[in-house]
Amino acid sequence: MPLPTTNHQIRLAARPVGLPQASDWSHTTAPVTEPVEGGLLIKTLALSIDPAMRGWMNEGKSYIAPVGIGEVMRAGGVGQVIASRHPDYAVGDMVSAGLGVQEYLALAPSDIARSGLTKIDLRMGSLSQWLNVLGMPGMTGYFGLMDVGQPRAGETLVVSGAAGAVGQTVGQVAKIKGCRVVGIAGGQAKCDWVVQELGFDACIDYKASPSAVREGLKTHCPKGVDIYFDNVGGDILDTVLTRINRKARIVICGAISQYNNTTPVKGPANYLSLLVNRARMEGIVVFDYADRYAVGVAEMAGYLREGRMKSKEDIVIGLDQFPTTLLKLFQGENFGKLVLQVAEA
Amino acid sequence: MPLPTTNHQIRLAARPVGLPQASDWSHTTAPVTEPVEGGLLIKTLALSIDPAMRGWMNEGKSYIAPVGIGEVMRAGGVGQVIASRHPDYAVGDMVSAGLGVQEYLALAPSDIARSGLTKIDLRMGSLSQWLNVLGMPGMTGYFGLMDVGQPRAGETLVVSGAAGAVGQTVGQVAKIKGCRVVGIAGGQAKCDWVVQELGFDACIDYKASPSAVREGLKTHCPKGVDIYFDNVGGDILDTVLTRINRKARIVICGAISQYNNTTPVKGPANYLSLLVNRARMEGIVVFDYADRYAVGVAEMAGYLREGRMKSKEDIVIGLDQFPTTLLKLFQGENFGKLVLQVAEA
Repeated sequence: MPLPTTNHQIRLAARPVGLPQASDWSHTTAPVTEPVEGGLLIKTLALSIDPAMRGWMNEGKSYIAPVGIGEVMRAGGVGQVIASRHPDYAVGDMVSAGLGVQEYLALAPSDIARSGLTKIDLRMGSLSQWLNVLGMPGMTGYFGLMDVGQPRAGETLVVSGAAGAVGQTVGQVAKIKGCRVVGIAGGQAKCDWVVQELGFDACIDYKASPSAVREGLKTHCPKGVDIYFDNVGGDILDTVLTRINRKARIVICGAISQYNNTTPVKGPANYLSLLVNRARMEGIVVFDYADRYAVGVAEMAGYLREGRMKSKEDIVIGLDQFPTTLLKLFQGENFGKLVLQVAEA
Repeated sequence: MPLPTTNHQIRLAARPVGLPQASDWSHTTAPVTEPVEGGLLIKTLALSIDPAMRGWMNEGKSYIAPVGIGEVMRAGGVGQVIASRHPDYAVGDMVSAGLGVQEYLALAPSDIARSGLTKIDLRMGSLSQWLNVLGMPGMTGYFGLMDVGQPRAGETLVVSGAAGAVGQTVGQVAKIKGCRVVGIAGGQAKCDWVVQELGFDACIDYKASPSAVREGLKTHCPKGVDIYFDNVGGDILDTVLTRINRKARIVICGAISQYNNTTPVKGPANYLSLLVNRARMEGIVVFDYADRYAVGVAEMAGYLREGRMKSKEDIVIGLDQFPTTLLKLFQGENFGKLVLQVAEA
């Protein structure tokens, strides 16, 4: 089969102020290149659309270098090897890697390690599950919960963004570990799904009223909060801080409410609750656990196989939909892990 | 020797709004009472004046119950047993306990445990050192540093309130443990003392200019900040957060800049630096280490004896001076551990 000739790409054209706009992106094409000796060519099938992408678009020091202006937008994804001069990869292999928002990625040998290239096994989970519970969000939730959250049976865990990619993993794993699990999500439909399908003990619809989180925590966490897994920051973090127990652990995974701020980030005004309660607030970055992903994937795949864990993906079709799809995250419009399907498997 | 007849006391008359005022206190007298069977009578010699006192004056849940309106103000102190019906305490014994802002405390047997009554040995340190490096501030600094800060030789530690009671212990112990130590204090005199007398590597005068802390950290922490021991909160905490290293530990010991706020506490707007740097912010309360005080005291007393540790106390004389003395803390007017001497030893 001859190789395709044209690679459609989406590049960062400008650093956004607030929510990314159409003018912050450029749609470009480049020729598809044959792999060099030791390299391979991957066809993108699906991309992971993540809140963290917003941070990668900003200038300045972070846990990872920003995407440069004019560069293909960074994205993790799953794809299929369509040409290979690498001894370990054959045409047809399914892989996960940092593919970028483009249809094809030609990986040179020197870029393979940095790309995070890994073969994936579709018997362990579907392509989109490999971007969800078996992928970065799942690993973020699993290692953040286990390493920093340190759940013990009988404790109460609260997770925000409960219906999102990280939240669904965190809550389900915490249930398996014996915790009482209370989610926070936007809208009744997400809350119902989290409770009825994922088996959370309760879920608070933060959009229901301005006092919904405060009242919901009182009702659903009668013994206080031992672990809070925070994906959102802002007022919800501050409210949970008023309900934590002694020696509570707060996992700082993200702060989606603050990513598009044009004013300074809202710091947690109630942070002195950490002092009163001898509690801990700690940040995590999934890449630190790269050498243990296999362990996490195996555990998650086991739960999927046994029917003890479910997953939900919100799939949007078409590379060109990337700019508008990303915005769904910040409006809370996605229901489940947001996936951009670029091609049919 | 006949017992004294009158006990002068200072009681909380009202809950302050902002800085405590004269009208928030009442000066009262009560008869001195003979100890009951199993109890003892203590004459207050000196009281510890601490930032935490401000928190005890507020209503609401905290790590300790608030002082009730009309109650003698809570204070730790050192004193001498002047009458005893307790088999383990003799007249003349020197003790440390929660004495309250008053001249005499008659302890009933049922109140002894709660008072934290302990004999003190003046060969290990002076009376005022027993309120400083060998007392609550010293134990706060020592256990906060060792348990949460977890210093390793070669790391950089920053401590705010460096010339204060907790700060001087933290910095000196961290030096002994092999850290580079940078203090933050108000005014050149305190900074000079911290560097020249206590041996800190540097000290930043936060009052020198609005950018003093930012510039000082750049200059004096060329390898970033591994441990920040925070006694002040506010803008200084936020500035340090921009300079922390991977896996940094921030010990939340206090937030003196915020205790008299009449507006909400300023939360750390840069808290997402915890995420970027996989860092931890954790609160400590000294009472949790009560069963290990003897270990801490023995280590500090050893350093004092060997001349490896110095202490500085700022001594004000007279029980009636309590209300104005407390205010010195919040204006940063004290230089060293603030002690109220109530009687001659």
